[in-house]
Amino acid sequence: MRQLFELCGADRDVCYSPFAWRVHLCLLHKGLDFERVPLKFLEKEPLTPANSKTVPVLRDGDTWLKDSFDIALYLDQTYPDNPLFGSDIAIAQARFINGWLDRTVVMGLFPLVTADIAALQDAENGAYYRETREKRLGAPLEEVQARRDDMLPAFQVALAPARLALAHGPYLAGARPGWMDYALFGNFMWARIVSPFELLDTGDALYAWRERMLDLFGGVGRAAKRGFRHAA
Amino acid sequence: MRQLFELCGADRDVCYSPFAWRVHLCLLHKGLDFERVPLKFLEKEPLTPANSKTVPVLRDGDTWLKDSFDIALYLDQTYPDNPLFGSDIAIAQARFINGWLDRTVVMGLFPLVTADIAALQDAENGAYYRETREKRLGAPLEEVQARRDDMLPAFQVALAPARLALAHGPYLAGARPGWMDYALFGNFMWARIVSPFELLDTGDALYAWRERMLDLFGGVGRAAKRGFRHAA
Repeated sequence: MRQLFELCGADRDVCYSPFAWRVHLCLLHKGLDFERVPLKFLEKEPLTPANSKTVPVLRDGDTWLKDSFDIALYLDQTYPDNPLFGSDIAIAQARFINGWLDRTVVMGLFPLVTADIAALQDAENGAYYRETREKRLGAPLEEVQARRDDMLPAFQVALAPARLALAHGPYLAGARPGWMDYALFGNFMWARIVSPFELLDTGDALYAWRERMLDLFGGVGRAAKRGFRHAA
Repeated sequence: MRQLFELCGADRDVCYSPFAWRVHLCLLHKGLDFERVPLKFLEKEPLTPANSKTVPVLRDGDTWLKDSFDIALYLDQTYPDNPLFGSDIAIAQARFINGWLDRTVVMGLFPLVTADIAALQDAENGAYYRETREKRLGAPLEEVQARRDDMLPAFQVALAPARLALAHGPYLAGARPGWMDYALFGNFMWARIVSPFELLDTGDALYAWRERMLDLFGGVGRAAKRGFRHAA
C-alpha cells in the first residue's frame, strides 16, 4: 500500500501544499500508483508514523518517510528507473537548489497568496493558520497580500537563474523533467490552486515551461481542483 | 599544447579572474598540464582565435574555447575521468547554479572589492577598468567600495543555499569537489587575490570549506600571489 499525505482546505479535493505536489509529481514520474490522503492543518495524527507534523508524508508499504527532498532521494534509490537525480553530484547540487527554492521561491511566494490560503480553510483551521502565519509575518495576512502587485517584480527577477537553465532545454533538468522541475513547479501548483493571482508574464520562458509542466502525466496539474473560486 | 589565458594586474603573477580560476581548478581536477598566459584587460588580441574578448580562453591543441562553463563541459566530455558534472541532469542543474553565481555571488562581490581591483592595474589598464566599471556602477569605485561593511551581511545571507549543501558533505558536490565547488571558489580566489577584505566569519561552514579548497592540489589557491599588498 502506497499513500501520500497531502494538505487540503475545507474542501478535501483542494490539495495545495507545494512540497506535497513535489512528491506527487515525483511519484508519477516513477510511474508509481498511490492513494492521496488529504489532511487539514490540524489533522496531524496520521503523520505520526513518519515522526512528522507536516505534509508530505509518504507511506510505501511498511516504510514511512517525511520531507519532500528525503522522499525524492528514497524514490530514486528504491526505484532507479527514470532518474530524478541519477548521480551523487546531481543530488549534492539539488541540496543547494532546494535551499534556494526555500529561501527565494517559497518565501517569495508566500506573502503573495497568504490571505488566499486563509480563505480556503474551515473556521478552526483558518484560525490556526492565521494565528501562526500572522505571527511569522508580523502583520495581518490581508495587509501583506495587498502589496503583492508591488512585490511581484522582485519575485520574477529572483527566478532569473531558472530562465537561464531553460535556454538549453525544455525542462530545468534538460531534455526530460527531473526533480528540479517538480520542485519548482510544486510552488506554482501551490499558487495556482489557492489564488487567481498571476505570477508570470505570458512572454516569460518560465510561463511556457509551466504550461509544459501542467500538461505532464495527462494534465494532472491542470486538472487539479482550484480552491479560490469557492473563496470568492 | 594546452594554454589557459587568464587576467592579470600590472604584476603578471597576480592573476585574479574568478572565471579563469574556475577553469584553472577544473584543469587541475582533471590532472591536465597547462601553461598559464596572463593578459591585462586591454590585451585582447591573443583571445581572438577563440572569438572572445574576455578570459578565460582555453587552447587545447587545435581547439580554442571560451566561457568558463562551456570549457568545463568540454573538459568533462573530452576527459571523462573524475567527473566535474558526470550526468545530463547535473549539467542542467549546473546551468541554473551558474546563473545564480553570476547574479548573486559575482554581482554581490564586485562592489566589495571594485576599487581594490583598480589599484592592481597599470595606468592604461586602470583607466580602462575605471571608466567601464564606474559607468556600470553609476558611481566612483571608491565611493561604492567604502560601503562594503554595510553590504557584507546581505552578501553573507545570500550564500545560505551553499551552506545547506555543506551540511551533507565536505564539498558542495558531495564527498569530492566538483564543478560547483570550483565555480563558487573561483569567486573567493578573486576576492582573496585583489583585496584584504574578509568575506566570511571564521564560524561559517563556508569558511571551513574555503580552507579545504585552498588546500587542494598542493595548496595552489593558498600559494597564489596576492596583489593588494603592492597597492597598499
